Amino acid sequence: MPVVFAASVDHSAVILSLFVVLAAAKVMAEIFERLRQPAVVGEILAGVIIGPSLLGWVAPSDLISVLAEVGVIFLLFTVGLETKPRDIFQVGGRAVMVGVLGVALPFAAGYFLAMAWDGSTVEALFIGAALVATSVGITARVLGSMGLLDLRTSRIILGAAVIDDILGLIILSLVSSGGQQGTIDTAGIVKTAGAAILFTIIVGLAGSKLLTGLAPRIKRLKLAGPFFNLGLILCLGLSLASMYIGVAAIIGAFLAGMALSESVDGNDKMHRMTGGVTEFLVPFFLVNIGMQLDLSVFRDTNVVVQALLLTLVAVVTKFIGCGIGAWGMKAREMAQIGVGMVPRGEVGIVVAQIGLGLGVISANFFAAVLFMAVATTLIAPPFIKILFAEDIDDDGVPDNIVETDVSEEYSRIG
Amino acid sequence: MPVVFAASVDHSAVILSLFVVLAAAKVMAEIFERLRQPAVVGEILAGVIIGPSLLGWVAPSDLISVLAEVGVIFLLFTVGLETKPRDIFQVGGRAVMVGVLGVALPFAAGYFLAMAWDGSTVEALFIGAALVATSVGITARVLGSMGLLDLRTSRIILGAAVIDDILGLIILSLVSSGGQQGTIDTAGIVKTAGAAILFTIIVGLAGSKLLTGLAPRIKRLKLAGPFFNLGLILCLGLSLASMYIGVAAIIGAFLAGMALSESVDGNDKMHRMTGGVTEFLVPFFLVNIGMQLDLSVFRDTNVVVQALLLTLVAVVTKFIGCGIGAWGMKAREMAQIGVGMVPRGEVGIVVAQIGLGLGVISANFFAAVLFMAVATTLIAPPFIKILFAEDIDDDGVPDNIVETDVSEEYSRIG
Repeated sequence: MPVVFAASVDHSAVILSLFVVLAAAKVMAEIFERLRQPAVVGEILAGVIIGPSLLGWVAPSDLISVLAEVGVIFLLFTVGLETKPRDIFQVGGRAVMVGVLGVALPFAAGYFLAMAWDGSTVEALFIGAALVATSVGITARVLGSMGLLDLRTSRIILGAAVIDDILGLIILSLVSSGGQQGTIDTAGIVKTAGAAILFTIIVGLAGSKLLTGLAPRIKRLKLAGPFFNLGLILCLGLSLASMYIGVAAIIGAFLAGMALSESVDGNDKMHRMTGGVTEFLVPFFLVNIGMQLDLSVFRDTNVVVQALLLTLVAVVTKFIGCGIGAWGMKAREMAQIGVGMVPRGEVGIVVAQIGLGLGVISANFFAAVLFMAVATTLIAPPFIKILFAEDIDDDGVPDNIVETDVSEEYSRIG
Repeated sequence: MPVVFAASVDHSAVILSLFVVLAAAKVMAEIFERLRQPAVVGEILAGVIIGPSLLGWVAPSDLISVLAEVGVIFLLFTVGLETKPRDIFQVGGRAVMVGVLGVALPFAAGYFLAMAWDGSTVEALFIGAALVATSVGITARVLGSMGLLDLRTSRIILGAAVIDDILGLIILSLVSSGGQQGTIDTAGIVKTAGAAILFTIIVGLAGSKLLTGLAPRIKRLKLAGPFFNLGLILCLGLSLASMYIGVAAIIGAFLAGMALSESVDGNDKMHRMTGGVTEFLVPFFLVNIGMQLDLSVFRDTNVVVQALLLTLVAVVTKFIGCGIGAWGMKAREMAQIGVGMVPRGEVGIVVAQIGLGLGVISANFFAAVLFMAVATTLIAPPFIKILFAEDIDDDGVPDNIVETDVSEEYSRIG
């Protein structure tokens, strides 16, 4: 019997859920833009509203989770396209400081907090690990929408997020191998971490040079939109490579964008084509985060207290850790970097899920981590907007004119 | 317990299959463009090569089938964006003739051929139905890539494809209600057909006027790329509506694009953003068609003979039926319309699948229909390219310059 179209998919149900997610996200984005609030917050709240917690119109599904993953991959690819490698290398040392301190403090705080709540050691290690990883997509989306991705502080945040992710990978490998076998596979972890660091450095250094050299040949491809099509393949290919190495797919996507950034500078067609895919898919990423929040667990006051405390600790330690990492810069810049690293988003959720899967963290802790992940993601964007607003004013352009410029820039980027 | 990210999806496997499908499709498209062959043929062949028949790198899956569906929806949306409603209404009478004759002849021929092969009456009706529906996406993609969507013959093909789809729906309802219950629910079918026709006419007539009137307000939306974002929602919403009514989703997508076509005329940003989504998703549609072909069934010579005969009949009857529908036009135009309607693609496969699901058609007939669907889709594009090539020359632009113009136009369209 020939292989046929998978008959198990109900296409009208699929199109319905795509429609509901997109329409809800775009409506909420529009409302939040009009209230001068970050559109990302509106889109995440759209997920809370249409998700199982409230209306129950759409439930988390394989399809939405896949579209969310591809969406955040494209988002970071787009951000990479706006980021020249030298911009990141110039802030390299600073980014390492921010990344390391922004990982150490939340990890330690999460660990001690969970121990104080009578968690097991492994459990406490997992809670610490869940507090580590920044979800840079959120910050990047907000900064992109303000047209501020080329600020020095934005670059430090992007660089630190890469380092943050690699450190998060190492910590997660440590705690999960500890949680799984009771022993720690040091050699394996060193190997993975080394591969991740090497991959990042090599692609970051050589990728851009290679592609800039190849640009005239790419231009001669017969394919429609040669840079866009090559970008698609490169973005998915490097995302895949970084997943195999063990870091998040978005690192590969960011590196792919960065490698192309010199060649497509000023290539409006490429930016807009990529922007189309991003505008289509990013809502799934944001709505999916919102849908994870199950409000019903908060009937238990203990969970509420745990969740609020964990969120407070997550915000404060990341803010202070990253802020101190930026020591010596202006106070406002330190604050910008600190707040830009606060959102945990999908990454914290994934860590907690692994812990739940291994049976080492309790359902209550899981609910608290989930709340923390969504809450940090909702709290940060308004502060990012406020703290970075001055950088728009610094150009000497009055507020009302800037508004239009920003939305123009926004549409180009995202 | 809170609802969590669906843990059943292996994200690296998902990204891997996206990567393989896209890379294979784009490489084959590039090769075929260089050989001056239609890129669509290359992309369908990419599906045959990487699919279960040959390399087995990727198998048809729910994910790919969903992306394929969304891909063809966006493709028809893009085509709609290039099509003003008056362009279609001007050729309305002609399109009805082409659609009706292009349905009647293949249906009758398929029926009698299957009867002659000792098929049951229901089986023969299904084979007839599978021969009916044109997959207009293929032709639209080829004509779009040549920049010829605004030709009169192109518009007749698009209009006829809409009529073709509605007639196909009616025939399918007839034969499946016959196959299922042995009796025919005439009232139900009349209701469905009436709803489909009304929907098409109302959206076709009123949609464009409504949106053109709203355009100044759409422009004032705070959303980035307001027309693109509204287009996304409209495209999915009308696709959904047409699925509920019973016609193919692509009819709704095409109408959505057409409704927006006046408002976004010359809106380069909108076209490019849509083009990005199309370039990303259409390969899944094409590769998915190619993947359906299971070459191993053709070890049985009977199946080979059946498949070849069915393909021959499918090509000849559609070509003649539609050609005669265009009676009175130039011979070349009649041929253009005839060949433009030949591809059956995914539609024929879906009909055969329903018959297989109802247990009324044999595995051999199914294999033959599958072959016919893929073969007609592969055969038509080179002839479309040849028959329409003169329309490029008619502009008086030399061949070599046209090549560049065409690829520029191609990239704008999708």
